[in-house]
Amino acid sequence: MSDEVHHADADELQAHLDEIQDLLSRYRLVENLVHRQEMPRHDLVEDLVHKQHLGQLKVRLDKMHPADIAYILESLPTDERLLVWELVRTDRDGDILLEVSDAVRESLIETMAPAELRAAVEGLDTDELADLAPDLPQEVIEDVFRSLPADEREQLRSAMSYPEDTVGALMDFDMVTVREDVTLEVVLRYLRRFEELPDHTDQLFVIDRDEKLKGVLPLNVLLVNDPETEVGVLMLKDCFEVQPDDFAEEAAQAFERYDLVSAPVVDAENHLIGRVTVNAVVDFIREEAESEQLAQAGLREEEDIFAPVIDSVKNRWAWLAVNLITAFIASRVIGAFEGSIEKLVALAALMPIVAGIGGNSGNQTITMIVRAIAMGQVKPDALNRLLRKELSVAVINGVVWGGLLGVVTWWLYSSVSLGLVMTAAMTLNLLLAATAGVAIPIFRYRMGGDPAIGGSVMITALTDAGGFLIFLGLATLFLL
Amino acid sequence: MSDEVHHADADELQAHLDEIQDLLSRYRLVENLVHRQEMPRHDLVEDLVHKQHLGQLKVRLDKMHPADIAYILESLPTDERLLVWELVRTDRDGDILLEVSDAVRESLIETMAPAELRAAVEGLDTDELADLAPDLPQEVIEDVFRSLPADEREQLRSAMSYPEDTVGALMDFDMVTVREDVTLEVVLRYLRRFEELPDHTDQLFVIDRDEKLKGVLPLNVLLVNDPETEVGVLMLKDCFEVQPDDFAEEAAQAFERYDLVSAPVVDAENHLIGRVTVNAVVDFIREEAESEQLAQAGLREEEDIFAPVIDSVKNRWAWLAVNLITAFIASRVIGAFEGSIEKLVALAALMPIVAGIGGNSGNQTITMIVRAIAMGQVKPDALNRLLRKELSVAVINGVVWGGLLGVVTWWLYSSVSLGLVMTAAMTLNLLLAATAGVAIPIFRYRMGGDPAIGGSVMITALTDAGGFLIFLGLATLFLL
Repeated sequence: MSDEVHHADADELQAHLDEIQDLLSRYRLVENLVHRQEMPRHDLVEDLVHKQHLGQLKVRLDKMHPADIAYILESLPTDERLLVWELVRTDRDGDILLEVSDAVRESLIETMAPAELRAAVEGLDTDELADLAPDLPQEVIEDVFRSLPADEREQLRSAMSYPEDTVGALMDFDMVTVREDVTLEVVLRYLRRFEELPDHTDQLFVIDRDEKLKGVLPLNVLLVNDPETEVGVLMLKDCFEVQPDDFAEEAAQAFERYDLVSAPVVDAENHLIGRVTVNAVVDFIREEAESEQLAQAGLREEEDIFAPVIDSVKNRWAWLAVNLITAFIASRVIGAFEGSIEKLVALAALMPIVAGIGGNSGNQTITMIVRAIAMGQVKPDALNRLLRKELSVAVINGVVWGGLLGVVTWWLYSSVSLGLVMTAAMTLNLLLAATAGVAIPIFRYRMGGDPAIGGSVMITALTDAGGFLIFLGLATLFLL
Repeated sequence: MSDEVHHADADELQAHLDEIQDLLSRYRLVENLVHRQEMPRHDLVEDLVHKQHLGQLKVRLDKMHPADIAYILESLPTDERLLVWELVRTDRDGDILLEVSDAVRESLIETMAPAELRAAVEGLDTDELADLAPDLPQEVIEDVFRSLPADEREQLRSAMSYPEDTVGALMDFDMVTVREDVTLEVVLRYLRRFEELPDHTDQLFVIDRDEKLKGVLPLNVLLVNDPETEVGVLMLKDCFEVQPDDFAEEAAQAFERYDLVSAPVVDAENHLIGRVTVNAVVDFIREEAESEQLAQAGLREEEDIFAPVIDSVKNRWAWLAVNLITAFIASRVIGAFEGSIEKLVALAALMPIVAGIGGNSGNQTITMIVRAIAMGQVKPDALNRLLRKELSVAVINGVVWGGLLGVVTWWLYSSVSLGLVMTAAMTLNLLLAATAGVAIPIFRYRMGGDPAIGGSVMITALTDAGGFLIFLGLATLFLL
């Protein structure tokens, strides 16, 4: 698809962005001059300069790869982004919409009329249409749907029916199939009838009359063997296959384990219905990693950094609300011990240390356990073993770091008993953190949930409130 | 390489693991019986049962893909892991060592004699050797080095010389090269002389007499065109190339942008010296994502969940120490206001809320900014724009959430002024968090550092100490 357009490395891409921003700012400068001096908007000279800048921009953009234009669009503030978007050739709109981030895609689609959108998505494959569909207005999808031939309509319907985290959502339909009873020579002649092969064709799929998958013929095998050999002799029968409702994450792990470029997708009766390619897998892996990172910081979705303030507030709202509630609970725990703090004000200064260290240690544990679960290393009988191990780590850390802090406390406040309470509270809170760090993700996993989501919030809430309770409780019992 | 061995999906892999664990536990059972009843170790019947289990295990393992055996090894506790490792055919040791995680690799290599290691790594490619080299004993590397032919020795030397985050570390040397003045027919005949093509050969590299890269000939192009055409007519001249000291992350982004399967690596004079393939890129992306996740939780490296407790303590040590210091500083800030807290003990209960919300909000900001920097979207002039935006978000959150908490405080403690101090402190701490969230990563980026590392620790330390200072300071000024 991208044979004529330029492939840029990181520096070149940055240079393109700089150049485009430069052209845009010169364009803006002229516009501002026109505006400020209240010159007639259609003053000839200005108009020419104007058009010249835009012309240069257009030439630049036409030579760029859709993915690079997507990058440029993501890097520009909203008004300049829309200016550039107007200049892009309409027949490339669809490819670019596929490449931009969700937030930017929404901002671009908002500005387009239904007719423009229809034109933009016209040349796309059905699997690409399925990716864009959730962001398109209903009427556009319906029009597009009606304009498709029956088989593609069926493909689109099926591609749209799979949840986002399944193989079905990654699948495309660009396959080259051959029969097992022909020779490689015949296959080679058959391939020469193509204009071009689908991207990422590293193997041909061998099917029978009923479209059932019999095996795969890697191009490597096709190219190094005697043309007189039959496909059936050389094809690999035990190839890696996936089903459309398999988890995408599992397919991604298999692509990594076996270094695959493509894999056939078959239904329950082994009919070939599509394929998954490594580029879809790479996008999936990157998106997963990013959404996990965002979720850990309590961001609901990727933020367009040039989006209006109100969008950002909404994106961050939910987490702050949760955090407010947990902080409030921790605050009430302290409130219950106000009497103790009044008598021994040093407690107020020391309690955040106990809570903070517990939270950090708990997050370390939960990260380990979530990873072990994701890699399939946690079996039911591993729970006890892991718990024992994490509790041992907690005891050692409690004795070492808690002991150190106990000594510092003793030295600061000249009270041995306060130091001992500090050490004991830290050790107990670390034990609480270790227990929760193992139990929360395993419990969630057994309940069928995603062990990663929200674990960090829960454990921090627990070690905050728990840390205050343990420390102030011990102090009230033994010191007052 | 893996044509005869089975490719397993996630369920099958789990079934393999279950089966192997079952065989192992039966083996252990017999061993325990022998041990407990103090029966002679070489009792004939027991010995037979013993051997039978191990035999079954060996048959199972021999049929599995090296990557799957690696998974099994990672999922087993140390003693059982070593038992399985003994049973694996020696000629597959090298491939398996390449696949296991760093922590597990160390544990396996520790148990191997130099002669075993030499035998294990014998069949590996030079780029694979370079990957293993850091974990091998010096004497083994030297022996291996001496046994290589001169050109591979040179390859190994160069592969080992590149830092881990550069293209050079991802590169391999398995390339098929052709000349531009031959026809496709000649190329096809040349390829048939190969036993097999290197994995991930999606294009042939077109070089001249001086080994300079002239272009690439995708297999797709080779297969669909008339065999009489010359390579030079069809090859793509403007292909994506990388240099060995380019950042691996930049190459990975290009692979994603342009959906590449392989890319040529050239030196400054455009000599072809290697290639990067998508499987190396996928591994790199996954490892990057994982090490970021681990780093965020303050884990220095991936932990073997079956490693001894002491290894885990060491792995988590550094972060807890840093955290202890920052917590201690925050504690001293509170200590400075002990007089105020003695007079108004409600302050002790309320201050963690101000600090906690600030920390969370700051982490949201820093996550956004780090992402924007990673995607190259942050230009010098964007600093002001981003700062304005984040400050606006902070003001809105401060007024809304701070206002809400102010009302709750007023209601709880029947003090309007305490409520007002609460609202003001929250707003100010959110502004501090926003400023630091923008400034810390951008400052680190300009200094040439990695904006992601440690940002979360720094901002939490700042918003904790800052939150206590602001809240207690305002309270001391206006309430006492």
